[in-house]
Amino acid sequence: MDKIKVGIVGYGTIGSRVAAAVLKQPDMALVGITAFSHNYRIAEAAKRSIPIYSFVDNAQFPVPIKGTLKDLCKASDIIVDCSPKKCGAENKEKYYAPWGVKTIFQGGEKAKVTQCSFNAQCNFDEAKEKQFVRVVSCNTTGLARTIMSLMPLGIESVRTVLIRRAADPNDSCKGPINAIKPEMKDIPSHHGPDVKTVIPSLEIFSMAVAVPTTLMHLHSLDITFIAEPALADVIALLEKNPRLVLIDDDMQIPTTAELMDWARIRGNSDLMQIAIWRKGIGVSGREAYLFQAVHQESDVVPENIDCIRAMLGTMGKEQSMAVTDKTLGLK
Amino acid sequence: MDKIKVGIVGYGTIGSRVAAAVLKQPDMALVGITAFSHNYRIAEAAKRSIPIYSFVDNAQFPVPIKGTLKDLCKASDIIVDCSPKKCGAENKEKYYAPWGVKTIFQGGEKAKVTQCSFNAQCNFDEAKEKQFVRVVSCNTTGLARTIMSLMPLGIESVRTVLIRRAADPNDSCKGPINAIKPEMKDIPSHHGPDVKTVIPSLEIFSMAVAVPTTLMHLHSLDITFIAEPALADVIALLEKNPRLVLIDDDMQIPTTAELMDWARIRGNSDLMQIAIWRKGIGVSGREAYLFQAVHQESDVVPENIDCIRAMLGTMGKEQSMAVTDKTLGLK
Amino acid sequence: MDKIKVGIVGYGTIGSRVAAAVLKQPDMALVGITAFSHNYRIAEAAKRSIPIYSFVDNAQFPVPIKGTLKDLCKASDIIVDCSPKKCGAENKEKYYAPWGVKTIFQGGEKAKVTQCSFNAQCNFDEAKEKQFVRVVSCNTTGLARTIMSLMPLGIESVRTVLIRRAADPNDSCKGPINAIKPEMKDIPSHHGPDVKTVIPSLEIFSMAVAVPTTLMHLHSLDITFIAEPALADVIALLEKNPRLVLIDDDMQIPTTAELMDWARIRGNSDLMQIAIWRKGIGVSGREAYLFQAVHQESDVVPENIDCIRAMLGTMGKEQSMAVTDKTLGLK
Amino acid sequence: MDKIKVGIVGYGTIGSRVAAAVLKQPDMALVGITAFSHNYRIAEAAKRSIPIYSFVDNAQFPVPIKGTLKDLCKASDIIVDCSPKKCGAENKEKYYAPWGVKTIFQGGEKAKVTQCSFNAQCNFDEAKEKQFVRVVSCNTTGLARTIMSLMPLGIESVRTVLIRRAADPNDSCKGPINAIKPEMKDIPSHHGPDVKTVIPSLEIFSMAVAVPTTLMHLHSLDITFIAEPALADVIALLEKNPRLVLIDDDMQIPTTAELMDWARIRGNSDLMQIAIWRKGIGVSGREAYLFQAVHQESDVVPENIDCIRAMLGTMGKEQSMAVTDKTLGLK
Repeated sequence: MDKIKVGIVGYGTIGSRVAAAVLKQPDMALVGITAFSHNYRIAEAAKRSIPIYSFVDNAQFPVPIKGTLKDLCKASDIIVDCSPKKCGAENKEKYYAPWGVKTIFQGGEKAKVTQCSFNAQCNFDEAKEKQFVRVVSCNTTGLARTIMSLMPLGIESVRTVLIRRAADPNDSCKGPINAIKPEMKDIPSHHGPDVKTVIPSLEIFSMAVAVPTTLMHLHSLDITFIAEPALADVIALLEKNPRLVLIDDDMQIPTTAELMDWARIRGNSDLMQIAIWRKGIGVSGREAYLFQAVHQESDVVPENIDCIRAMLGTMGKEQSMAVTDKTLGLK
Repeated sequence: MDKIKVGIVGYGTIGSRVAAAVLKQPDMALVGITAFSHNYRIAEAAKRSIPIYSFVDNAQFPVPIKGTLKDLCKASDIIVDCSPKKCGAENKEKYYAPWGVKTIFQGGEKAKVTQCSFNAQCNFDEAKEKQFVRVVSCNTTGLARTIMSLMPLGIESVRTVLIRRAADPNDSCKGPINAIKPEMKDIPSHHGPDVKTVIPSLEIFSMAVAVPTTLMHLHSLDITFIAEPALADVIALLEKNPRLVLIDDDMQIPTTAELMDWARIRGNSDLMQIAIWRKGIGVSGREAYLFQAVHQESDVVPENIDCIRAMLGTMGKEQSMAVTDKTLGLK
Repeated sequence: MDKIKVGIVGYGTIGSRVAAAVLKQPDMALVGITAFSHNYRIAEAAKRSIPIYSFVDNAQFPVPIKGTLKDLCKASDIIVDCSPKKCGAENKEKYYAPWGVKTIFQGGEKAKVTQCSFNAQCNFDEAKEKQFVRVVSCNTTGLARTIMSLMPLGIESVRTVLIRRAADPNDSCKGPINAIKPEMKDIPSHHGPDVKTVIPSLEIFSMAVAVPTTLMHLHSLDITFIAEPALADVIALLEKNPRLVLIDDDMQIPTTAELMDWARIRGNSDLMQIAIWRKGIGVSGREAYLFQAVHQESDVVPENIDCIRAMLGTMGKEQSMAVTDKTLGLK
Repeated sequence: MDKIKVGIVGYGTIGSRVAAAVLKQPDMALVGITAFSHNYRIAEAAKRSIPIYSFVDNAQFPVPIKGTLKDLCKASDIIVDCSPKKCGAENKEKYYAPWGVKTIFQGGEKAKVTQCSFNAQCNFDEAKEKQFVRVVSCNTTGLARTIMSLMPLGIESVRTVLIRRAADPNDSCKGPINAIKPEMKDIPSHHGPDVKTVIPSLEIFSMAVAVPTTLMHLHSLDITFIAEPALADVIALLEKNPRLVLIDDDMQIPTTAELMDWARIRGNSDLMQIAIWRKGIGVSGREAYLFQAVHQESDVVPENIDCIRAMLGTMGKEQSMAVTDKTLGLK
């Protein structure tokens, strides 16, 4: 069988990681990536002989350029658009829609830009035969995974507070340096409604603040069940999901700092799994609560890989997720 | 009538502020403060001719020393102990109990160290004639003020997540520099149970994380009422309390950074009121939610002043709080 | 004698402080300030009955507006322009030059925008009868004060590294959160050449980095003298200058964090003096070295006040500086 | 030929990296590591089947323990001690000296603890047949590499200011969160004298400050040559050294944040080379200046590997450094 030909538009934090993940898939080939301007990521891609296409026509680069965005689109079965927030929607209007290109967008785009929002666990099959699908954001993915895992116990409602890292580790422009910022544009914050794009039946309320750290988002979750759950059942369901990882107390990982160092040692500095501290899980009456940490740079990578197969219909949910988990080292 | 003679033990973040507040009270006299070792605070106290007593006998200081801890205790009607966490309990056993000194402790001490925990709004009258009373911590004070203000609407339960500043502005030792730390020693965090020391009937659940900022604590509150409240009623009750301040949207104060700068401009760099962003207050069904910021260094100062009068029985609740608010500039 | 009528354009970090300082001068009257849009500073100015002029015609404000920028300029003997970087130059072209208004600009403007750069110690008399003068930036002011103080010992050359706070305390937008940024736009950094605008004969080399803190700039200075200086002479000259303050070791002020807390306690949260750690001053052969901290928000305030008098010729250097120092509490 | 049997005592930031590097050497075998208590590093070592020895007798671990510290010492030709600061000196007295074990110590130990301080470029041959050698610290290694590279041009003196990261990325305890700390214990800071332990003839003056970041140290260097150097010669010498890396301007790496992200992408999140910004290198008269960044967690790793061979005399300097550079991916 022919490999799926994947093109990546936008080779930044997410795009470079999705490209690396595509290279590890037995059923996929990386056609190439786009570059907007030169930088250290593009330099490394060139060293690894990844074909580079210029997003803008006639731009000058110190590395070989294979073609234009249009060339990449033509050569690909599917495009994963990892452009900055809101640029994906523009690209859709200007390029993908007129050119008839199947495209995956990221969570920085609004839900209405695509026909369907996607999380592998929640609604894999919905993506089939859609032209435009959106993989939900890092925070929404983190919430969706944990909540979906606990669905068998019967969830009545979820309350969550998201303590967001204000900038990515390689972002030296954004602040604040010393402040907490409550997010008040929408309350509930957009995260709750966004989870409902992949779990429509869920009752969920979310609030968010941004804090001066770069490493990870942290969520407090307070889940009310229909009936009093057993703590052991809650833990067993979380343990069963390979896209979550429970942090044992004797690992001596009290904060996101040690967590990221552990991720580095495990081999690739990314933590595609949502990390849940075992000591922080509890049950009180009909409510369970927990703390989880979300690696904003990588947790959506496996979802993008699954989304490619879901849209093209080349594999079923169970098989795709198993292949993704294995190739990306999720236990 | 004679002024109340107040002695301050521990002239740090809280002690220096309580001393300054005592100096502003028409019915109080500052007998003196204790110094453990010399530093910039003691140097400034000496410049202002505040009598300094040595906590340790025979210690050497570059400023004049008026006497010992025992001398200060003898000369005072009441001691406000603002020693570091857990030192208050030691001081009680070693000094205040054997010497029969009336003492106020801070929220760093356990509730069981004293006969009664105190918040002026919640339980002013309970402190009367007690020898040992504890003013609850900055976070607990912040929660107690807001919750108590909304009690008239009938509260069923409260859920709160505390996003704590990891170190005070003048603390150059404590980290983390770049991490989020979920507090998992106890879940619910100690804050919920601590609010119950001053509002025993309350149903409350709290979780806490520490973040790398020095300026203020921030709380997300989610309050379930017995019946659906009107947003206008919620706001009206919050506005009525002079120990809360509502932040209007056109003040352009999106984070704790601008909030602290506003506090500086208002005259003393402290914000003894709990700050609630007006834009962040909402009602959804029987639940109201809000974000509030707590200036950990100063919000307990008015409570300490009221506690002095409450313990000595020199003024009633309404009168004491009104005098405190006026002298400390709480509108 | 009539008071000097001063108008302030731009009521931000510097403008609000210059306005407060003008209010303390026996020979000056604050005509008013301009507001660009409403915010917490303008709200506080209104509460203090400071006349507010709208920078933009027909803008709407929730506080009373007394007139336009033109009105303020007409009513003032001199304008202190404290607009954001580069806006001063624009204002000069559009307003002050055509309207013939005497104006002081801040260090964010290029030297060539004005006829003369200013530091009270260095070149007070040069400002006389100029229409446009620039008070040099916070960092340049800090360097100029220390260097000028040591001039009597015969300076051959100065080497300095500036470790800059990346954002002001009330700036919640700028980063980096976790990085060090070497400043490479110009090397030597612009600070060295800028010191030469007020001490033209000086040989100076500067490099600069920005770091994730909000509190103060810190300079390392390495000064080569023509002949080997005595440490005692270096210290004596520094001690003599009331716009410098030497930090004694027993004050327990190891970092800029405690330094700013000391400034808060001293009364106004500002430190208009350059702080030099006594323990960090040393001499080795013909070189002396030291560490100094610069409060970027306030050290230029006394210079602006002196510059007003210097330009209008109402007082001589010694008298003006003495009045400024006394009214602003510089010992 | 038999492989060199290497034991690692202390499996933290440095120890875990030296162990990983030993595993990549064709002429070395990793006998094992010691564990003091369980944590995420030990858990990962166990997963990789690295033999673990208990530092303390009879300690309990959730992973298999192969023996004691004594067992590890007996089984090893050489021990690399990567214990926390000052613990190495204790271990020497208690264990390595009485047991006659050849040991390498890290830069946290004082120079006098060992017979010789070590940097591969500077004094490889001195380590031969010594029992105790110290690899100099991360900062000293960074300075030594750059300075030694420029020696052919004739150095008169060096002035450097070190802007130190206050805590490692996985250290969630140490601060400051928002302050700059000038280091005044010794001035010049200990770094200058420490460089002289490996380049004794050098004239060097250093000052240091600590800043609230976790990523890298940054040095400003100002090097005075005996004769005016050509910029091209300076650059050519820096380019020739594989343990330095010059950062091109079009890589878009303005700060240590992007630099560390580049290191992550290159494959292992470590940057064993000293990074020098090409744009920051300049020459002015007899002085050259530059900015360099030091990855405190990894730059000493190649030096430890070379030190093993130097002490045991199994390879000469050129060959050892070439093998180290190749196996560790230094170009």
